Amino acid sequence: MPAHSVGLVAAQSARFDAPLVLKSGAVVPAYELVYETYGTLNAAKSNAILICHALSGHHHVAGYTDPEHIKETLGWWDNMIGPGKPLDTRKFFVVGVNNLGGCHGSTGPSSLNPATGHPWGADFPLVTVEDWVRAQARLADRLGIDAWAAVMGGSLGGMQALQWAIDQPERVRHAAVIAAAPRLTAENIAFNDVARQAILTDPDFHGGNFYQHHTKPARGLRLARMLGHITYLSDDQMAEKFGRKLKNDAIDYGYGVEFEIESYLRYQGDKFASWFDANTYLLMTKALDYFDPAHATDGNLAAALARARAKFLVISFTTDWRFSPARSRKIVNALVRNGQDVAYASIASQHGHDSFLMMDAQYHAIVRAYMERIAA
Amino acid sequence: MPAHSVGLVAAQSARFDAPLVLKSGAVVPAYELVYETYGTLNAAKSNAILICHALSGHHHVAGYTDPEHIKETLGWWDNMIGPGKPLDTRKFFVVGVNNLGGCHGSTGPSSLNPATGHPWGADFPLVTVEDWVRAQARLADRLGIDAWAAVMGGSLGGMQALQWAIDQPERVRHAAVIAAAPRLTAENIAFNDVARQAILTDPDFHGGNFYQHHTKPARGLRLARMLGHITYLSDDQMAEKFGRKLKNDAIDYGYGVEFEIESYLRYQGDKFASWFDANTYLLMTKALDYFDPAHATDGNLAAALARARAKFLVISFTTDWRFSPARSRKIVNALVRNGQDVAYASIASQHGHDSFLMMDAQYHAIVRAYMERIAA
Repeated sequence: MPAHSVGLVAAQSARFDAPLVLKSGAVVPAYELVYETYGTLNAAKSNAILICHALSGHHHVAGYTDPEHIKETLGWWDNMIGPGKPLDTRKFFVVGVNNLGGCHGSTGPSSLNPATGHPWGADFPLVTVEDWVRAQARLADRLGIDAWAAVMGGSLGGMQALQWAIDQPERVRHAAVIAAAPRLTAENIAFNDVARQAILTDPDFHGGNFYQHHTKPARGLRLARMLGHITYLSDDQMAEKFGRKLKNDAIDYGYGVEFEIESYLRYQGDKFASWFDANTYLLMTKALDYFDPAHATDGNLAAALARARAKFLVISFTTDWRFSPARSRKIVNALVRNGQDVAYASIASQHGHDSFLMMDAQYHAIVRAYMERIAA
Repeated sequence: MPAHSVGLVAAQSARFDAPLVLKSGAVVPAYELVYETYGTLNAAKSNAILICHALSGHHHVAGYTDPEHIKETLGWWDNMIGPGKPLDTRKFFVVGVNNLGGCHGSTGPSSLNPATGHPWGADFPLVTVEDWVRAQARLADRLGIDAWAAVMGGSLGGMQALQWAIDQPERVRHAAVIAAAPRLTAENIAFNDVARQAILTDPDFHGGNFYQHHTKPARGLRLARMLGHITYLSDDQMAEKFGRKLKNDAIDYGYGVEFEIESYLRYQGDKFASWFDANTYLLMTKALDYFDPAHATDGNLAAALARARAKFLVISFTTDWRFSPARSRKIVNALVRNGQDVAYASIASQHGHDSFLMMDAQYHAIVRAYMERIAA
């Protein structure tokens, strides 16, 4: 077992039979959420931390699922969570959950719709960050957790942490909002829409019901992921890592791979398209676009956040141009204006938006210090 | 006729029957270039200015082609060129040309290949900026122009002006390099490759020979243009113009148009896909990726530029993140290091990369002042 690992983990599943009325008005008659837990819930049930995932994330946050392939099956935030890690599982009980609408076991577009016996496909309703908070709150109920010691996430996961603090003020003692934004800009939405259009116009999409056609819109999903990757990385990092390096020494005046950056992006696109569900991708990008907690308060973010009772940790990364530090500071400024408790760090990092997933000494030291001060 | 217009214009065509050996080694046996001219070539033939176009541009630079639809048929740089305009056609003889490989009348992938009687399609060779300079030099020969008073262009057009100054030092007295870069970054190439992959993987692309299938890869071309548009605009401008404005007041939780930015991008994509040739798009993006005049001098741009005899005008725009001012300054610094004559302006503009096409008082005043000092 690697040092500081939570070790071999297995997913659990919780089924909720009461209908969930979504923000759109649509109803999910029943749903399942898959989740993992690390560490031990204390007797007071006061040491639980919820990890919310981003666009392509899932419930498998830490540890590994196959002892024969530890490295390949490590959780996506394993560097952050474990015994002795910034989020120390000797102190905390950590819960990772796959969101409603996901494609990793929780009920989503690729799940069977009991009403038809076919996958939900295009009939699966669009969900919002608010809906996820309510769906996850039922999981908290099931686990007997009245209040989370912290809700934590990066990117879209950070948005869920923020929404939790607003919508369930009594159930969130701390909210860690990392590499996030209070809402998407026009440019953010524009990138998402190009990605969606790539999927929606792929002839193999079949209006979202590609499962019955025994195919999938791999071309569109591949393009969406290639484009996404550009926005996750920083310009500087791409320049340093790839620059204008050629894959095979010379230019060959054709449309195959010539530059290494092409090879990298196409590989990432192909890999992603082989395992991710296109409808989930669409739905996740829409949840991002719709996220705007200040909408209900006429754009006044401070007013929207005033309900929160949590203390906040907000972290941004200097080279993140998807959700830049300026976007995080909007959250910080709104909290400060309200006199709410907020710690903010802007981390100098080379890895763009992806920085929140990376090992960085300063970043991890800050999370560690914050988490050490939380009463469990 | 609008004030300061060159008025009704018509394209001319020049055919070149001597084979052109391209940088790749491929040979174009013969080719035609379509071009337009504005103003009058003086007796000394010393007042000619060549305008080079960018990715989706062409030879129709100024004036209009249909007196019934003046606004709709204005040239793409009509605000810059005409009697009394910054590039004053009372003084200069201005030539606009459609590049080899284009889709506006010059020989390109959609032209008939005399060897087969079918459109060239995938058999049309990839061309480079150097190839364009050589193809355009033959047009200069044909017009009897020994040396251009100036070669001028924005974006990929600016790169051609730079290459002209390097490759034909005796034939370029001034080079106006606007919103350009000495070479593309990994991120620039990455965006181009996503656009290309959208076209190449469109089932209607048919390996580039879609003409014979009486179809075209409109889905791919549409995506390429949508993505391109994001990189042409600035984040701030998108925020100001579109923000999170909805097309129809309320969110409807579906994949139709919801935000105005989506409507704008899809419209631009559809329009472009209806008239532009996909093979030309691919070829133009490759010419961009390959452009790297310092490659022959081991990355030393100053060494590459040392051959030039032209004086330079370099202009960049503060909100251009496709080719940022920092990229233009690489050119300026290399010229300064060589003790070459260069004027540089960084224009504060809201319009991102597209700024080079826009009417801006300061920008136009600088071009005007520069052009007024050129001996004709």
